[in-house]
Amino acid sequence: VRLKGGDPFIFGRGGEEIEALARSGIECEVVNGITSGLAAATAAGVPLTHRSHAQGVIFVTAHAAPGRGPDWHALAASRMTIVVYMGVARAQAVQHDLIGAGLPRSTPVLVVENATLVRERQIRTTLERLTDALTAHDIASPAVMVIGEVARAYSAGEPLANIPMNEPMPVPAFSTAPIPLHS
Amino acid sequence: VRLKGGDPFIFGRGGEEIEALARSGIECEVVNGITSGLAAATAAGVPLTHRSHAQGVIFVTAHAAPGRGPDWHALAASRMTIVVYMGVARAQAVQHDLIGAGLPRSTPVLVVENATLVRERQIRTTLERLTDALTAHDIASPAVMVIGEVARAYSAGEPLANIPMNEPMPVPAFSTAPIPLHS
Repeated sequence: VRLKGGDPFIFGRGGEEIEALARSGIECEVVNGITSGLAAATAAGVPLTHRSHAQGVIFVTAHAAPGRGPDWHALAASRMTIVVYMGVARAQAVQHDLIGAGLPRSTPVLVVENATLVRERQIRTTLERLTDALTAHDIASPAVMVIGEVARAYSAGEPLANIPMNEPMPVPAFSTAPIPLHS
Repeated sequence: VRLKGGDPFIFGRGGEEIEALARSGIECEVVNGITSGLAAATAAGVPLTHRSHAQGVIFVTAHAAPGRGPDWHALAASRMTIVVYMGVARAQAVQHDLIGAGLPRSTPVLVVENATLVRERQIRTTLERLTDALTAHDIASPAVMVIGEVARAYSAGEPLANIPMNEPMPVPAFSTAPIPLHS
């Protein structure tokens, strides 16, 4: 068993591993998991595809070979929630490119460090203040960034548009505690 | 308990439901699940974000209010795998718009009807032949479409580029049978 966190087919290199196994004649079975971008958003009460605010969701890694990075202009134009994996080290470029591509500076951003672990931290900020917020709170990898209107997160049933931006995040109105395996 | 298939925060309206619960003062807990687009791809051996072929993955619904549909030009420009939910009824428009936006007509498309159910069917085709293939195989909702190079799917460890396009799909080199709960 090759056990991973997250999902093996979303930035998990599962594709390369089944290629190698198949070449060696080894049968395998792939079991899906909860990818960290989804888990992080849920822990903060953020519905990635709330239909009043997003046409869908994009999971993208900021970690790419030089010249092969994402087309941030296309992503900014998509009107979808953007979930960036491995983006802390490249946050300044992400911020610069998305603002340059026309995404409003006031776009909410949720940053979750160590998603779903006991030492998880959540920061809510705006695209304009993203790198400052990462520095101020000393956010390090692993962390995911959820960029878009849904990142305002919920509290007390307020519609998203009514929720003020501040740091750190308020506790959401619902629990995301893990389910005990034994009752 | 409000039990759903898939994930409540990816086209599951979980956001609207927690808003309603919070307004009524009812605490709740959100448990993530495996969204059908991911499950369908995995069942066919398709790694959504294989780093040789995609910068990431987009989950998008084709079902939207008039004039509020996805920006297919932006999605086509993104160089990412595109997973379309609820797209059968609008397949002709999706096909037309993505080709018009510059996506090659030869782009592989995987269609999975009734993903993960015993009556699941998988069809592999190209963007150019998409609507013809749906008609020929009488594909109906619910179905998801995975659009991009990764949709060639795996067999016998061949690199994606070597796999010919045909219908119906070959059985992948690994099993995606459900795990028995009791051994």
